[in-house]
Amino acid sequence: MVDRRFFYNAGSLTLGDIASLTGTSIASDGSRIFTGVAPLECAGTDDISFLDNVKYLDAFAQSKAGACFVRPKYVPRAPKSMVLLITDDPYSAYALTAQRFYPEPAVTAGIAPQAVIAKSAVVGKGARIDPGAVIGEHVRIGSGCWIGANTVIDDNVEIGDNCRIGALCTISHAIMGKRVLLHRGIHIGQDGFGVAPGPKTIIKVPQLGRVLIGDDVEIGAGTCIDRGAGPDTIIGDGCKIDNLVQIGHNVQLGKYVIIAAQCGISGSTRIDDGAMIGGQVGIAGHLHIGAGAKLAACSGVMTDIPPGATYGGAPAVPIKDWHRQTVTLAKLAKTKEE
Amino acid sequence: MVDRRFFYNAGSLTLGDIASLTGTSIASDGSRIFTGVAPLECAGTDDISFLDNVKYLDAFAQSKAGACFVRPKYVPRAPKSMVLLITDDPYSAYALTAQRFYPEPAVTAGIAPQAVIAKSAVVGKGARIDPGAVIGEHVRIGSGCWIGANTVIDDNVEIGDNCRIGALCTISHAIMGKRVLLHRGIHIGQDGFGVAPGPKTIIKVPQLGRVLIGDDVEIGAGTCIDRGAGPDTIIGDGCKIDNLVQIGHNVQLGKYVIIAAQCGISGSTRIDDGAMIGGQVGIAGHLHIGAGAKLAACSGVMTDIPPGATYGGAPAVPIKDWHRQTVTLAKLAKTKEE
Amino acid sequence: MVDRRFFYNAGSLTLGDIASLTGTSIASDGSRIFTGVAPLECAGTDDISFLDNVKYLDAFAQSKAGACFVRPKYVPRAPKSMVLLITDDPYSAYALTAQRFYPEPAVTAGIAPQAVIAKSAVVGKGARIDPGAVIGEHVRIGSGCWIGANTVIDDNVEIGDNCRIGALCTISHAIMGKRVLLHRGIHIGQDGFGVAPGPKTIIKVPQLGRVLIGDDVEIGAGTCIDRGAGPDTIIGDGCKIDNLVQIGHNVQLGKYVIIAAQCGISGSTRIDDGAMIGGQVGIAGHLHIGAGAKLAACSGVMTDIPPGATYGGAPAVPIKDWHRQTVTLAKLAKTKEE
Repeated sequence: MVDRRFFYNAGSLTLGDIASLTGTSIASDGSRIFTGVAPLECAGTDDISFLDNVKYLDAFAQSKAGACFVRPKYVPRAPKSMVLLITDDPYSAYALTAQRFYPEPAVTAGIAPQAVIAKSAVVGKGARIDPGAVIGEHVRIGSGCWIGANTVIDDNVEIGDNCRIGALCTISHAIMGKRVLLHRGIHIGQDGFGVAPGPKTIIKVPQLGRVLIGDDVEIGAGTCIDRGAGPDTIIGDGCKIDNLVQIGHNVQLGKYVIIAAQCGISGSTRIDDGAMIGGQVGIAGHLHIGAGAKLAACSGVMTDIPPGATYGGAPAVPIKDWHRQTVTLAKLAKTKEE
Repeated sequence: MVDRRFFYNAGSLTLGDIASLTGTSIASDGSRIFTGVAPLECAGTDDISFLDNVKYLDAFAQSKAGACFVRPKYVPRAPKSMVLLITDDPYSAYALTAQRFYPEPAVTAGIAPQAVIAKSAVVGKGARIDPGAVIGEHVRIGSGCWIGANTVIDDNVEIGDNCRIGALCTISHAIMGKRVLLHRGIHIGQDGFGVAPGPKTIIKVPQLGRVLIGDDVEIGAGTCIDRGAGPDTIIGDGCKIDNLVQIGHNVQLGKYVIIAAQCGISGSTRIDDGAMIGGQVGIAGHLHIGAGAKLAACSGVMTDIPPGATYGGAPAVPIKDWHRQTVTLAKLAKTKEE
Repeated sequence: MVDRRFFYNAGSLTLGDIASLTGTSIASDGSRIFTGVAPLECAGTDDISFLDNVKYLDAFAQSKAGACFVRPKYVPRAPKSMVLLITDDPYSAYALTAQRFYPEPAVTAGIAPQAVIAKSAVVGKGARIDPGAVIGEHVRIGSGCWIGANTVIDDNVEIGDNCRIGALCTISHAIMGKRVLLHRGIHIGQDGFGVAPGPKTIIKVPQLGRVLIGDDVEIGAGTCIDRGAGPDTIIGDGCKIDNLVQIGHNVQLGKYVIIAAQCGISGSTRIDDGAMIGGQVGIAGHLHIGAGAKLAACSGVMTDIPPGATYGGAPAVPIKDWHRQTVTLAKLAKTKEE
């Protein structure tokens, strides 16, 4: 059901190919051919689907998908004709399969005549630069990069190999690793919010740091990452940041940190490896979020968070305490009413 | 008091014209001529104004507006010289009148020489395309459309007739109806946040759906709408979405849904017809918000919301319960203190 | 430790120069020479640093900075070799010093051949207009302004002298003072969210006001400021607005208002001089925030706030009440559990 005007299909796979790619076990004939992936509701007999959320059990039971990644416990609920690919991690298995059917198109080398590139800029082999992109002096763009239309890259920025920078981004004061994926409308490297309240006025504090971005980072549309005030702002390898996120000056993200949409990370806060931050979370400045910590959506974080802990609420507390507080208050309000 | 450098005035109207246009009753001579609209504070004798919020009763009582839309109950507070246009819905009456005095200027056909348009793109009759716009292969742009400066439209996107797309937007993987109004800096069709936490790394989940936008939709500046992950992201006819809103993959909005600024709607959530969402509301994923439901500003929604219900708070509860909880907690805190 | 590829250093200063510039007292020889500023952790013997937050006392005690701005009470914690610049306001003193070492580069006059400027537009002396900028009819741009790449300025907009407008901004229906600093991706002047729910449909309310911006205003990346609905939206002199902020129609900010990232100010709300708004605060419409009021991060404001008061929570209450409520609820939940 994928609209092939928008997505390129790399060709069919056998069930055996898929089982092997994803490390899943199958009970049936591995030679059956599949042509793509699709959601449970609209998959056909040539499609692979997945069940990862109990809410979709009914859709699973009624799906016409030819095959489906599924956890062992839901096997009894499957339609009779469905081939089952049994795994403890159906979402990852689906992801790997979808990547194989619909790979990212390769970058087609070429510099648009409407791009404006400073003479001292160095553009690597095989790079693509779209119309209206403006590339400043001494910028270094790695090989195989794709710079989207009307994106503006300021003087001296360095971009590693095989990065894809979407349309309408701005990048300044930044050094970026390899295979970084920036979606559209992202702003990296602007002044942090450095404001010293003076006696009669407000004094602007010069922002003299950079933004350092590791390898394999993905950043969502409309997100803003301010450069450091003196130290650098650092985004570690493999971080995934969603849309419309604000990252303040001097923030340090470790590796594989996941940040959902519309979060705000205030200046000088450090978030360690593998932390997962839900949507619309606000984190105050100068805090330390430990490795693997999880923050529920809409949390307001005003204290350090220990490694591995799960917190929620505003001000954020351990998630069990938050649930207990919510229930307690609801009961008290009901009692008072009576 | 409207600055006519910025707004084109289409000419005078009689009081009778206005009463007839808005279905309001007047007690006075219908031939009196008015030249425009203005707020209560700065309206003159040739202007029409409106009173829609009790907070402005004093401004109403002191206004020099020649005429004013007003609910029956506020008639006694009116200045003696003011002509009263009595209606139960002064804001809508004002809106219709303002539209007549200051209509949107017609689109002046023409393609700027600095636009970059792929040869296979089809641009309808009477369309206007501004400088720096970049239009991809096989894009279809309807008749009478206006594409703003430096906006980027990727391959195969379809835009219906009489749409107005502001400057600096990006659109990909999308099919759009008629008379859609996009303000500036809007990003439609980028990858949703599909992240499967793997054993040693994070696996990117290909996003293989589209964005389908109905007729008469209006979307505010800086808003991001991700394309579907497999299903499509759907925005129904007549939806009004404010600035800096995040709409995740697979979200489905019914018709005439109103979403205020900075809301975040997580993936796969469905919002039915006529729901109204206040500013900065966060809604978790895979939920169902019923038709006509209302969510107070700053709510954090973690459960389904029944049709027609009004909820508030984080986690959101029925609005009366939220108010009761707020009052209960305030009292308890005060008691403890004593 | 400042990366001089990105920042221009204006030359050395003596300790005496710095003490005199910042009004700080020194006990040592004023002739010693310093070459720049740096954070405590990475400063060397030729750098000036500062201590402004107790969290960094350890870094202070171990710093190799040649000199440091510090409050009197922390003097005993200083390393022996560090020259101390004693002041009650180390952050402002640092800011002034950093401005002297690393001044904003002057604007280099010149209009890029790839800019698109209407014939009737007036561009002041010494202005710089970057590639891809699109300037409409009758626009007036003051002397010494810098208009960033691919920024779009609509007809009749007026921009005062010495403004710096970053890349990828849109500006319409606006009149702007002098020395305004807009970072990137800012949208000013689009339609406010004027929606009148009609009987069968939604009626768009024409937005007939402007945006008036005073002198010395600084606005962060991705921020949106809607034009007025009838009255104007007004941003007073010296306001500092961070990234991804939403300012609704008819909002009035006094002078030197500070608004942190991701705040949303709803329509027709007035915020008086010197108020300070923390990150992610939401303020409902038609409210009045008094002069010098402070709002804690993540507050949801539903009532007027008195001048000078500090509020927090959602719904926001005086900050002491909020802390008390938080503690009370935590205790009650714990009691219930036992």
